[in-house]
Amino acid sequence: MRSATVVDLNADLGESYGAWRLGDDEALLAIVTSANVACGFHAGDPLTLRRVCAGAVARGVVIGAQVSYRDLAGFGRREMTVPPAELEAEVLYQVAALDGIARAEGGWVGYVKPHGALYNRAARDPEQAAAIAAAVASYDAGLPVLTLPGSATAKAAQEAGLPVITEAFADRGYNDDGTLVPRDRPGAMLTEPDAVAARAAGIVTDGVVESVTGTRLSLRPRSICVHGDTPGAVGLARAVRAALERAGAKLAPFA
Amino acid sequence: MRSATVVDLNADLGESYGAWRLGDDEALLAIVTSANVACGFHAGDPLTLRRVCAGAVARGVVIGAQVSYRDLAGFGRREMTVPPAELEAEVLYQVAALDGIARAEGGWVGYVKPHGALYNRAARDPEQAAAIAAAVASYDAGLPVLTLPGSATAKAAQEAGLPVITEAFADRGYNDDGTLVPRDRPGAMLTEPDAVAARAAGIVTDGVVESVTGTRLSLRPRSICVHGDTPGAVGLARAVRAALERAGAKLAPFA
Amino acid sequence: MRSATVVDLNADLGESYGAWRLGDDEALLAIVTSANVACGFHAGDPLTLRRVCAGAVARGVVIGAQVSYRDLAGFGRREMTVPPAELEAEVLYQVAALDGIARAEGGWVGYVKPHGALYNRAARDPEQAAAIAAAVASYDAGLPVLTLPGSATAKAAQEAGLPVITEAFADRGYNDDGTLVPRDRPGAMLTEPDAVAARAAGIVTDGVVESVTGTRLSLRPRSICVHGDTPGAVGLARAVRAALERAGAKLAPFA
Amino acid sequence: MRSATVVDLNADLGESYGAWRLGDDEALLAIVTSANVACGFHAGDPLTLRRVCAGAVARGVVIGAQVSYRDLAGFGRREMTVPPAELEAEVLYQVAALDGIARAEGGWVGYVKPHGALYNRAARDPEQAAAIAAAVASYDAGLPVLTLPGSATAKAAQEAGLPVITEAFADRGYNDDGTLVPRDRPGAMLTEPDAVAARAAGIVTDGVVESVTGTRLSLRPRSICVHGDTPGAVGLARAVRAALERAGAKLAPFA
Repeated sequence: MRSATVVDLNADLGESYGAWRLGDDEALLAIVTSANVACGFHAGDPLTLRRVCAGAVARGVVIGAQVSYRDLAGFGRREMTVPPAELEAEVLYQVAALDGIARAEGGWVGYVKPHGALYNRAARDPEQAAAIAAAVASYDAGLPVLTLPGSATAKAAQEAGLPVITEAFADRGYNDDGTLVPRDRPGAMLTEPDAVAARAAGIVTDGVVESVTGTRLSLRPRSICVHGDTPGAVGLARAVRAALERAGAKLAPFA
Repeated sequence: MRSATVVDLNADLGESYGAWRLGDDEALLAIVTSANVACGFHAGDPLTLRRVCAGAVARGVVIGAQVSYRDLAGFGRREMTVPPAELEAEVLYQVAALDGIARAEGGWVGYVKPHGALYNRAARDPEQAAAIAAAVASYDAGLPVLTLPGSATAKAAQEAGLPVITEAFADRGYNDDGTLVPRDRPGAMLTEPDAVAARAAGIVTDGVVESVTGTRLSLRPRSICVHGDTPGAVGLARAVRAALERAGAKLAPFA
Repeated sequence: MRSATVVDLNADLGESYGAWRLGDDEALLAIVTSANVACGFHAGDPLTLRRVCAGAVARGVVIGAQVSYRDLAGFGRREMTVPPAELEAEVLYQVAALDGIARAEGGWVGYVKPHGALYNRAARDPEQAAAIAAAVASYDAGLPVLTLPGSATAKAAQEAGLPVITEAFADRGYNDDGTLVPRDRPGAMLTEPDAVAARAAGIVTDGVVESVTGTRLSLRPRSICVHGDTPGAVGLARAVRAALERAGAKLAPFA
Repeated sequence: MRSATVVDLNADLGESYGAWRLGDDEALLAIVTSANVACGFHAGDPLTLRRVCAGAVARGVVIGAQVSYRDLAGFGRREMTVPPAELEAEVLYQVAALDGIARAEGGWVGYVKPHGALYNRAARDPEQAAAIAAAVASYDAGLPVLTLPGSATAKAAQEAGLPVITEAFADRGYNDDGTLVPRDRPGAMLTEPDAVAARAAGIVTDGVVESVTGTRLSLRPRSICVHGDTPGAVGLARAVRAALERAGAKLAPFA
């Protein structure tokens, strides 16, 4: 008898800022197994972070540091050419700040995941990827990095001796080379719950996802990412979780 | 035979930001025993903090977290009415961020000292003082708070079970009630090295400082503060250190 | 025959920031006659401002500059002690920035209204009020200031030779002295549409509003303010407008 | 008889921020004919801008808006991929803010020059160049843009119907294609006053500058740029001005 696939479900949380609310952190904490919590550079004021960490601890959700470029106005979605030493220090600062808040609430940062434009840039830029890996390793040599399989981020993390956890996206379009379709292109975001759920199920049962051109891509991710900041995000996440459970997968964090 | 007075010498460091340089961190690290390092809210980009922490570790200088209001444009010198829960989370975020950077460089945050307007407000505002103390205690229940004797900050820290370390200012004017003369008033800053040095010596030998009206105030501080951001700051700090040593004091950090 | 009361209806708009949405600018532009548009210091990225200005011009809504403390994290709701020359320059900067954007869209800034904590502080602090008035006068000596009757803001604007326009709040609680109940106190916000609408009608027909203690306060405001950032804000604004029209008032901007 | 070459001398000013000082604005105002004044996005708090504008007006120096990416931490030197509509609105905001401050001091913004990474990116990126040009044209259809000859910035400004003013750099290294050597490469900055002065003289007398490989590049710039933020900047600027005058050039602003 084949054992059940174990899979993590991650989403971005803690992305409110001061008077501005974004996403439904409470609802998502009841669905995901890992929370990529903003660290204040693209979103996430300290009080928001503290509340999300408290909620994550209460529900047994693992807290990840969602590190970003320093870009509140652009929500970390504008690519920046940051010198490596600066980027490394900025990532270290963010991981440490969130970990301190998590610890004050009885939790800890269990992994690091770059956000937005930094995620995409580091996936193909060995220099920025190395800066992120160096920052994480300088904070905790055993802290996993969550990223795309085959990315420069994964390679740099591996070279730095860090555990690498790969993820797939249930609600993002894939190019034929396994990279994500940029947000400003057609097919970037899937929003129809049934389609997203079916895709998530296909990933865990068959290890396959279809690209925007219809090519079948093989992947065996340890985590599935759903987005928390889109309209209907909570419904999508619920649909994905239900589909994963129906497909026989066991949902569990990796950290 | 009377044992020598042991006294700490602290100054503000890490107050550059990006392209802007402020103070001579390297020179001050050779003089002080404790460095109040900015945490990014009033000054101190992460790379600057990292360099200062590395320098402090190399020289055996104790690192303190100089927490501030979020106010780069005002350098943390503009008083703000921040709701306590927000302030507490902001202080926690800053302490954790700096501690993580310090640890990556082989050091750690050994104490917390509020900066600028937060220092002055908390000294008389029990609510903000309690928020600071709660933040520090939530991060590390044994982390000392460095502040004015008799201040609301000292009282709140004590009530939170935190070690309280008191300081005196060699280069600031005192009011008769032991509070500092605000920076925009006459007599706020002493800049003549001999006068500042004599004052420092008087504090450790006689436990006395003269107020702006000539009243003799009694104090037995464990630390003496000199400023790092004034013109001639390094010369002043050197003069103070030399005077303390001539007066027979033993310079040593408290943390 | 008594002529109809002419009254303006103003609300805060343009308070989104980057990825964060706040309020329904489009819906409010169809209801109000004057839009207090954020200027980037407490909210309002430049692209948001541009869109709001374009919408206001398209609908004939007058654009006002809603100037604030520099405090994105606190949404301008945290009182700050800003030195007058700094505050004056910051207000001038904001008014000019918004006016340039408005002009690029075929409109202009027709008045200035301080936001949040600056509104409240200036209402009782002659120094900050004078800084605001000086900034407005230095930009345009004929630019009206919209504020509470009897406030320090009104007095300073008058002394600076600026037109003063007074407003009343349909959805805020009043103290007996005509000041607003602070947001963190009971009775600060009225949220029941019928009550708010009745209050607005009472103001224009009888020139009376009831304080939280039940005292009748006399006022003859040229403008009525409704809030745009509360849940149900659009419904409230519509109810107020309808009530004003039913009461025979003619809605028209003052600038 | 050949008439004297008329040339403008421009430098970056207003790049202090709050407590941080950068450059000697007063000294430079006595040397240059045009001041590229920061607009608050990479440097330049409103009070600093006001003081620089007042100084420029007093000395008859033309004020230019030195628009930048929103990046205080990186001083606008980190390239950013900003969507065009956002960039356009951000540039418009900056130009308008500075113009308002300049007008309050009796001056006005006479031209626009992108700063740092935006200058370099726009010089080769038609999309960002077009966004800048659109912003300038939407503010004032006759406002000149100061940039490198042959750049995408120049082309976009021309297509938008804006006057284009070209500049050469007395203290920056040139590549063979007329672009500037990036700041992190050898030969990027010239710091020896005699060499910089000789180069400036060669530009106005012979219309020639030598690239880093020794190639002679032809250029006939209407303006010469010297930097204000390097050590010895004032001395360099003085040397350049003296050399230009010795070479028979007449120094005069273009706007």
